[in-house]
Amino acid sequence: MAVLQDARGQKALGPLKPPGRGESPRYGEGGKLIYELRDQGGELLALRYDLTVPFARYLAMNKITTMKRYHIAKVYRRDSPATSRGRYREFYQCDFDIAGHFDPMIPDAECLKIVHEILSELRLGDFLIKVNDRRILHGVFAVCGVPESKFISTCSSVDKLDKMPWEDVRSEMVGEKGLSPEAADRIGEYVRLHGGLKLIEQLLQDPKLSQNKLAKEGLGDMKLLFEYLTLFGITGKICFDLSLARGLDYYTGVIFEAVLVQQENDHVEEPVSVGSVAGGGRYDGLVGMFDPKGRKVPCVGVSIGIERIFSIMERRVKASGEKVRATETQVLVATPQKHLLGARLKLISELWDAGIKAEMLYRKDPKLLKQLHYCEDTGIPLVAIIGEQELTDGVVKLRVVTTREEVNIPREKLADEIRRRLEPCSTAARRELLARPRRR
Amino acid sequence: MAVLQDARGQKALGPLKPPGRGESPRYGEGGKLIYELRDQGGELLALRYDLTVPFARYLAMNKITTMKRYHIAKVYRRDSPATSRGRYREFYQCDFDIAGHFDPMIPDAECLKIVHEILSELRLGDFLIKVNDRRILHGVFAVCGVPESKFISTCSSVDKLDKMPWEDVRSEMVGEKGLSPEAADRIGEYVRLHGGLKLIEQLLQDPKLSQNKLAKEGLGDMKLLFEYLTLFGITGKICFDLSLARGLDYYTGVIFEAVLVQQENDHVEEPVSVGSVAGGGRYDGLVGMFDPKGRKVPCVGVSIGIERIFSIMERRVKASGEKVRATETQVLVATPQKHLLGARLKLISELWDAGIKAEMLYRKDPKLLKQLHYCEDTGIPLVAIIGEQELTDGVVKLRVVTTREEVNIPREKLADEIRRRLEPCSTAARRELLARPRRR
Repeated sequence: MAVLQDARGQKALGPLKPPGRGESPRYGEGGKLIYELRDQGGELLALRYDLTVPFARYLAMNKITTMKRYHIAKVYRRDSPATSRGRYREFYQCDFDIAGHFDPMIPDAECLKIVHEILSELRLGDFLIKVNDRRILHGVFAVCGVPESKFISTCSSVDKLDKMPWEDVRSEMVGEKGLSPEAADRIGEYVRLHGGLKLIEQLLQDPKLSQNKLAKEGLGDMKLLFEYLTLFGITGKICFDLSLARGLDYYTGVIFEAVLVQQENDHVEEPVSVGSVAGGGRYDGLVGMFDPKGRKVPCVGVSIGIERIFSIMERRVKASGEKVRATETQVLVATPQKHLLGARLKLISELWDAGIKAEMLYRKDPKLLKQLHYCEDTGIPLVAIIGEQELTDGVVKLRVVTTREEVNIPREKLADEIRRRLEPCSTAARRELLARPRRR
Repeated sequence: MAVLQDARGQKALGPLKPPGRGESPRYGEGGKLIYELRDQGGELLALRYDLTVPFARYLAMNKITTMKRYHIAKVYRRDSPATSRGRYREFYQCDFDIAGHFDPMIPDAECLKIVHEILSELRLGDFLIKVNDRRILHGVFAVCGVPESKFISTCSSVDKLDKMPWEDVRSEMVGEKGLSPEAADRIGEYVRLHGGLKLIEQLLQDPKLSQNKLAKEGLGDMKLLFEYLTLFGITGKICFDLSLARGLDYYTGVIFEAVLVQQENDHVEEPVSVGSVAGGGRYDGLVGMFDPKGRKVPCVGVSIGIERIFSIMERRVKASGEKVRATETQVLVATPQKHLLGARLKLISELWDAGIKAEMLYRKDPKLLKQLHYCEDTGIPLVAIIGEQELTDGVVKLRVVTTREEVNIPREKLADEIRRRLEPCSTAARRELLARPRRR
């Protein structure tokens, strides 16, 4: 995730302890999937289920009130894996969070900007970031006559609107969740709305919703958020969507989720749905739950679904038949005759010491052809050949693998020559890659 | 570990599965410290205890016969933590391994070169890499009259020679391990030897040892290894030490361990022993244990004790009172007047899009002084100030935090100017750092 590192420059946290006693309730339904280690060593321990709750606990335990960090690490779910869809029991999460008391919506807008930047740079295809606010949703439920005790279960029904038609969601609300048909119908009128600034302003004028304190706060912040997103120039891919609910209990304000709008199926025979590729939101109460005095630290954060993104990218590379270089080796040190292992070891050592990425075959007397084939197989661009003649002349023969061009370089200038031939080119190549409209 | 990445260019493996059924026996004594997950979901699973056994299992399961890789990941030990000495229950390991059928000692020499390179670049102080071979040790035991059934337990006594005087090790051998006093005395004559090529040649002439097949093989390879290490120019810090035994059962040939020879205690009040900082060896039988047909893949590898190294480095930085920058932010986007949040958001977005590491305070109207103080506190070198006048003139005021120098830059040239001011300087600084004899 070069975006996280390059554009923000925030380092990841060091090791966080696995979540301890009493953490599972924070996860709601998900708590069932925690791998527990209790009964070993007498302490209640569990494997990290996500990176958000441990982050909150870390802030509370260390009394940290301001922090911005990204964290890429493994989490564990005691779940049935579905590897084809990128779902594993042990997998990486990639989170970015901003904690602290700040002016409204500034860090929230940055989170969305980062999601936008990552998904744009990875060129995964067209995407859409849906945005909503828990307070707006609760306001909607309240003005539609849903009792507060049923807010969370109603939320989880609404959350299914991206996979189920409204009729099915409605009958779940009425049948399973026990809402009145009238309440469900009123909810349906709201949660099927989506749009931008205009919709926000329209809802701020809504006679019922504008009377609800929570909804009004949420809509006011949503308006501010869209103003900031306009300044960031990214509203084209952002949609205020009242059906977005997100399952986790701990969200308290803005919530968002990024989905790929269309899969590029040119090369793929069967389109495979991989679900959302990023999600997050504001959780102002979580840190306070871990603080003995309940001191709150407002947080907003985003989780990038890197495993899902990798499974999409891998499938695409596979379909395109493109070859991906697994190493960054710049040069192979080779010898054309026998009994020259010593010369190879001495030269590779000089190159390593000069910071060149060099390899050699671990053979005493490999054939030159075998050494050249190895370069072609692994994509190593240059070969530094040292034979008896070169040793006598104090030079090294530098061969370009693709063109087969060969040139003698004074030995003491070899490292600089390798750098000269590769580095400006690689920078240029990188620039070109960034400028290219789409090709992975 | 820039050395691993820069000089060799090998990527780390993706996620490896946690070790499964029947893995614990591979660890010998250590097996007791494995965190087990059995009884959850009906499968026998455990947390990764190290990175070597999972690597061997990965090769066997995927029928891979040649591979070179580094892997930095967390491992878990159900142990009593001793955080002051850098010992945790959850900690990082950093391994480098070369697997495959190659000519003797070439990959082994590369492993030692890498350890030498890492410890030199980290400037942890003077170090020594002890080298031995399991076959030499077994040969010594055999010619001293130790029954083969007692080789492993005798090994573990010998391994204590760096912490205990010979007399204590001898009485353990005789008292606890049941060796005859004569055998123990004969062992004592060998395992207290250490040196270089000369010692190897002397032992190759040893009337008893030279008659033992294993010892002869081991000594022949040790000679070859020292020849290669001479070509790498690193024998100055490498010592053939017959007392080195290493606890793990799976080593079959060369073994090595790096220790810091003297702690730099100038700033530290109490010298704290941190044990060895790297270790490894050849394990030619481990992959075969996981292969259904027992097919062997010879391996040699090294584990860098990064947690221990970090604890030394942290203690040193703390003692020196030096300030370590926690972020890489290049520029803070600041405003000198009120009502300019929009201008800041727009400018920071432009800088992010240009690949500049930029930050701003998450405040609507922060005081300029507060913004400048933030830069001083966090070490951000530049401030891009955008006020009403700058907006009118289409410029941005770029301020150098240390010198307070300010200069107006046309807005469209700002990113390039920031890059120009920071990048050549940082490259130069890096070169200077590498050239400097010692200063962290």
